[in-house]
Amino acid sequence: MTNFQDILIQASNSANSHVCVGLDPDPELMPVSDVYEFCISIIDATAEYAAAFKPNLAFFEVLGAPGFISMKKIVDYIHVNYPSKIVIGDGKRGDIGSTSAKYAEALFETWGFDAATVNAYGGYDSIVPFISYGDKGVYVWCKSSNPGGALFQGDEKAEGNPVFKKMAALANEWNEGGNLGLVVGATYPYELETVRQLAPCVPMLIPGVGSQEGNLEESVISAMSSASDANFLINSSRGIIYASRQKNTFQSAAAEAANTLRSNIENIIGINSGY
Amino acid sequence: MTNFQDILIQASNSANSHVCVGLDPDPELMPVSDVYEFCISIIDATAEYAAAFKPNLAFFEVLGAPGFISMKKIVDYIHVNYPSKIVIGDGKRGDIGSTSAKYAEALFETWGFDAATVNAYGGYDSIVPFISYGDKGVYVWCKSSNPGGALFQGDEKAEGNPVFKKMAALANEWNEGGNLGLVVGATYPYELETVRQLAPCVPMLIPGVGSQEGNLEESVISAMSSASDANFLINSSRGIIYASRQKNTFQSAAAEAANTLRSNIENIIGINSGY
Repeated sequence: MTNFQDILIQASNSANSHVCVGLDPDPELMPVSDVYEFCISIIDATAEYAAAFKPNLAFFEVLGAPGFISMKKIVDYIHVNYPSKIVIGDGKRGDIGSTSAKYAEALFETWGFDAATVNAYGGYDSIVPFISYGDKGVYVWCKSSNPGGALFQGDEKAEGNPVFKKMAALANEWNEGGNLGLVVGATYPYELETVRQLAPCVPMLIPGVGSQEGNLEESVISAMSSASDANFLINSSRGIIYASRQKNTFQSAAAEAANTLRSNIENIIGINSGY
Repeated sequence: MTNFQDILIQASNSANSHVCVGLDPDPELMPVSDVYEFCISIIDATAEYAAAFKPNLAFFEVLGAPGFISMKKIVDYIHVNYPSKIVIGDGKRGDIGSTSAKYAEALFETWGFDAATVNAYGGYDSIVPFISYGDKGVYVWCKSSNPGGALFQGDEKAEGNPVFKKMAALANEWNEGGNLGLVVGATYPYELETVRQLAPCVPMLIPGVGSQEGNLEESVISAMSSASDANFLINSSRGIIYASRQKNTFQSAAAEAANTLRSNIENIIGINSGY
């Protein structure tokens, strides 16, 4: 069985891209009314520039069972039409072990995601059911991108050993199967660098560069790792999918935004690698 | 508008009960094959002894869209047939603010729960969208019931100000609308006492007394609060719904388990109140 990290490297290399396109379909912002149709249009427009897609489960759950039916169809569509892309289920699920086992089965079997974001507040037993799927990726939510994230996670200024540092160091230990990753917001570049030092070989999923205005250059440089060039994904959701909200231009605008993000990242890598 | 804490007191008083029946329908353990039919049978058998029901979203999500359709029908069934009972959606959802807003809408509007368990790892902005629904209850996952929960949450032995203490103290501050609560496992009686001291008026949802073997007497004594006798719910899931796994006895066994738990709690309250 191929482990997730190898699948990630393949996905990134085959698209020459570290871009993850976040799918947050919001009927109030979409230029077309149907969630499935909107997401498929975005996927077709941006697939050339993306290594991964990340449906955000909240935006489907709010639509009820029909939302989940659309989400499942979207996951299947990507797998059929773009089999080299990784599909990350962004649900931040996590609970005590017996319940997390059901969530892991839901994310990886019921919905068919290749990877999932997970909330590790419940400790190691809450993520074990996810990492036991060796070919599936498990991105533990370590340092969130929002302004108030430091409250319980801590930050560089926190005394002692803040939770995000503890989590990063443990993720590095726990990554025996090569399928554990970390979510670290681009809005916290110093903390991102710290996480990379504590977890040199762990793939990162980095949100917050688009509408949240995280620093792309600092994030990419911090996230680069001697282990592999493909050791991170930069996610943009609203910055790509709502680049235009006009029906006749949203696809081309999304393509351009994804292409620009891809080029910017590859340029930063090119300038900073090989030293 | 009635606030959630008043609704909780009514629910508890009208059933003379602090019992919450956890609905974790697992096809491998259920004596009947249909999830909806199983849950309805459990609800009808135990409603007399319960103040609340708590569907665990993981057990429905793993069944895909049909699972969520069953869950919604179960929530509606309780509201129609047992309007005085509280229905708590146990999903431990939580993300950055814009995503948490979708989860809050999903839990309270799409699914129609009266209360929800929430993961506050993302900080205050991740729970604000939930608490802004004043008549809905928001139970923040503070101290989990599982053995490994102390890893990031901390426990009594932790140095400094562990996360669970910080969260309890903040929950007390944030509870301006009278609708914030805390999830604290019965398996950690000392920490439960600490949480009650830090958050004297905040309702608690206490799992872990059944198959997880938390101490009921210590938990009830610690959870009791001068603010109100109805300031906590003791949840039992597997201990009630799988009390018997035989088709002809599971309803009566569930009723007996719920009745026994109710009596035990009320006896402990009776012996320890009024001092």
